[in-house]
Amino acid sequence: MVEHIASEVDELVLGIGSADDSHTRHDPFTAGERIMMVTKSLADSDLVIYPVPIEDLNRNAVWVSHVRSMSPTFDVAYSNNPLVVQLFSEAGVEVQQSPMFDREKLEGSEIRERMIVEAGWRELVPPAVVDIVEEIDGVERIQRVSDTDGAAAQPNPSGSTDPE
Amino acid sequence: MVEHIASEVDELVLGIGSADDSHTRHDPFTAGERIMMVTKSLADSDLVIYPVPIEDLNRNAVWVSHVRSMSPTFDVAYSNNPLVVQLFSEAGVEVQQSPMFDREKLEGSEIRERMIVEAGWRELVPPAVVDIVEEIDGVERIQRVSDTDGAAAQPNPSGSTDPE
Amino acid sequence: MVEHIASEVDELVLGIGSADDSHTRHDPFTAGERIMMVTKSLADSDLVIYPVPIEDLNRNAVWVSHVRSMSPTFDVAYSNNPLVVQLFSEAGVEVQQSPMFDREKLEGSEIRERMIVEAGWRELVPPAVVDIVEEIDGVERIQRVSDTDGAAAQPNPSGSTDPE
Amino acid sequence: MVEHIASEVDELVLGIGSADDSHTRHDPFTAGERIMMVTKSLADSDLVIYPVPIEDLNRNAVWVSHVRSMSPTFDVAYSNNPLVVQLFSEAGVEVQQSPMFDREKLEGSEIRERMIVEAGWRELVPPAVVDIVEEIDGVERIQRVSDTDGAAAQPNPSGSTDPE
Amino acid sequence: MVEHIASEVDELVLGIGSADDSHTRHDPFTAGERIMMVTKSLADSDLVIYPVPIEDLNRNAVWVSHVRSMSPTFDVAYSNNPLVVQLFSEAGVEVQQSPMFDREKLEGSEIRERMIVEAGWRELVPPAVVDIVEEIDGVERIQRVSDTDGAAAQPNPSGSTDPE
Amino acid sequence: MVEHIASEVDELVLGIGSADDSHTRHDPFTAGERIMMVTKSLADSDLVIYPVPIEDLNRNAVWVSHVRSMSPTFDVAYSNNPLVVQLFSEAGVEVQQSPMFDREKLEGSEIRERMIVEAGWRELVPPAVVDIVEEIDGVERIQRVSDTDGAAAQPNPSGSTDPE
Repeated sequence: MVEHIASEVDELVLGIGSADDSHTRHDPFTAGERIMMVTKSLADSDLVIYPVPIEDLNRNAVWVSHVRSMSPTFDVAYSNNPLVVQLFSEAGVEVQQSPMFDREKLEGSEIRERMIVEAGWRELVPPAVVDIVEEIDGVERIQRVSDTDGAAAQPNPSGSTDPE
Repeated sequence: MVEHIASEVDELVLGIGSADDSHTRHDPFTAGERIMMVTKSLADSDLVIYPVPIEDLNRNAVWVSHVRSMSPTFDVAYSNNPLVVQLFSEAGVEVQQSPMFDREKLEGSEIRERMIVEAGWRELVPPAVVDIVEEIDGVERIQRVSDTDGAAAQPNPSGSTDPE
Repeated sequence: MVEHIASEVDELVLGIGSADDSHTRHDPFTAGERIMMVTKSLADSDLVIYPVPIEDLNRNAVWVSHVRSMSPTFDVAYSNNPLVVQLFSEAGVEVQQSPMFDREKLEGSEIRERMIVEAGWRELVPPAVVDIVEEIDGVERIQRVSDTDGAAAQPNPSGSTDPE
Repeated sequence: MVEHIASEVDELVLGIGSADDSHTRHDPFTAGERIMMVTKSLADSDLVIYPVPIEDLNRNAVWVSHVRSMSPTFDVAYSNNPLVVQLFSEAGVEVQQSPMFDREKLEGSEIRERMIVEAGWRELVPPAVVDIVEEIDGVERIQRVSDTDGAAAQPNPSGSTDPE
Repeated sequence: MVEHIASEVDELVLGIGSADDSHTRHDPFTAGERIMMVTKSLADSDLVIYPVPIEDLNRNAVWVSHVRSMSPTFDVAYSNNPLVVQLFSEAGVEVQQSPMFDREKLEGSEIRERMIVEAGWRELVPPAVVDIVEEIDGVERIQRVSDTDGAAAQPNPSGSTDPE
Repeated sequence: MVEHIASEVDELVLGIGSADDSHTRHDPFTAGERIMMVTKSLADSDLVIYPVPIEDLNRNAVWVSHVRSMSPTFDVAYSNNPLVVQLFSEAGVEVQQSPMFDREKLEGSEIRERMIVEAGWRELVPPAVVDIVEEIDGVERIQRVSDTDGAAAQPNPSGSTDPE
């Protein structure tokens, strides 16, 4: 997707959404780990890239202002998420949609499923991402947290601990 | 429902719940838009009405204190939501329940479904609400955000943006 | 479970998770009520017990730091929750798991279901817990809030109130 | 000030700022109490008035979006607070300033000081406000919380409590 | 102070205020560290003591509900903080005040000042507190964070870091 | 300061602190504007630079975990802020301090003061920063918000607004 956009622009802000989430089935990696994956993978690109972590505010009505305050100024937004399209449109920001962007989302989900069963995820991602996932034991992490997801969204210290 | 209550009281505080939510399938409109709908619809009523936006605190144990701090003082609460009934009761506030209040909730859901398919929602709401929904392109909004709801609760800037 | 751990340690920090939750089907009781249940039930134990309420931060990446800041220092953590195990492990904290800890979770769920139908929950809990639940009308509370859970997670003041 | 504005507009949204603050020297009253003061004082006015509590978000960059989402739509904003003027101006909202608005702020501070020493505050406020302040023991409240302000902004349960 | 109260009650909830604060001049220690200081110091007392960390909610109007939800139920509150007295009184909770409680506050401040200059703080605290402060290098901590306090309340990563 | 560090490292994460602050005397610019200033100013450097906005969490005890989750991994931290030094040290992160880093802080304050009086701030900053400040009318902004700071930290909609 970035390659497609790269043909249209010189500089690209890559919003890292839900930057405060990590260690879940949907967002197994921290914002910092996702920044490394993006920048290492696109290191050879001619594009100037700004990866910007965007924490969730949980208030749709102020989300565009929040993104704008965290990001360098931008002219056009690229997204296929209907809520994002709606929020940017109401705020008067031009949004570009393209069916091909969906592919990425599908693959994101597919890659996570393959990681959980340890089957063939490496060929779906750039080599730089493989390196980072292995360095942080990412496969073990996503397997463990996926176990939990169904049961409880919160880490629940229902067990107990032994004070010194 | 308001008509029913109007026969029993002179002044009415209308709590606008989840006031920080908007642009979702369940709460497509902002608190401000909901205030306008309520006040324009009830403009001819003899009742003195206070619409009060109540943001979610996500802590049931302090919710009654939160409502009381945001609202003019009140003697009786009207609700059919069992959690609301429980919380007010534990705090010693008298609560009135009535099966007819449920009708409103059902209609709220029904109206939103009809808006999504653009079929016959206008006859279920007061003319003032039709005006406001059309002024803010509310039908397009609820259609778009309903598309998203299933996929992801958060606006996810997974697309990218073009810095100036 | 505490008995099992008691044979291995002298002092025990009991983390009360989701301490800011209450009045839900999953967490019907406040943190304070849960502290009373634990301390009254274990009053005769030789173990020194520290019940520590841990509010949810909703950020897995900082959760271990949060627990550590709220708790007396500890050497070993006991949990079967895979997310808890993963988070403590990444932070270098030793975690003990045991299949028998699951029993507790199952029973927690079972006890709540029995309370809702008012059938045979008393024999599954210590007498001190029965006393506290009855003192706070806990059965009525869990019945009411379970009614709501399916419909809406938030107390929704969709009803209205009568100002003085 | 409202009288001055009333000559220019038909409808007025009165933003109740820092709606989540109360029991401090600067904001002794809850948002609900402030709503009552405003509506009772202006009950005889021809103006249609919407008092809207606005909770602090502590993020200047999203503040205008926050206000807009909580408020009925508006054409012109009236304020002499330079930060408010700056934020609305950056967002393209017309702002009206007038030296006379300052008088209100000064009087707000003066009235609170007089309440603390119980000297001559009644003649500076409308009779409806006197009634409400007396009903809620407002003078005692502001005296007590002003005592604390210098020492600590937070209620500090440094004392202790006696469990049943 | 606890000794004085101990003569009047059998069980005591010790609220650990601002439990989410630490590493500041006013609150140099974490809630967990404060729990250890209290429980080790009072280990020989006949009193049953419940130390309960209370995180700041920054909303005075809901503070009493918050404390109640985190604490075992209690009959009487002991405090000399005028805001605490006011909030409990408005909520109908009996509060005991005593001039001698102030001494503790003064000593807290005095002890911290002495720690900063490393002069004679040990004789003002119980031996158990000396042990804990030394174990966690507490004197160095309070010296460092007191340096910062004047300049900036937030840790400001204005420096920079070296990614691997 | 960056030049000094550049001689020691190949890659640099630049933490943009208090990223959620803007429009104040201390932090007049948004995180996004600060990212642009940094990246444009250092565009010719050989250093690989990652500017990472870090929102305030207001919990010192979890701050290091928060920074780590938002940032690419790093080996050494550079800071002269004593609180930052203390927090990183307690977490086992190596911190480099240098008297020369202070110069930057002093100049930051000096530059803001000069902007307010419109006197000689341009020669203290790189040309790229001058361009950005002028593009966003930054001088007018800092003048306005500095006016407010003394009076009230919050935008206070004490004025009123005119609904359509």
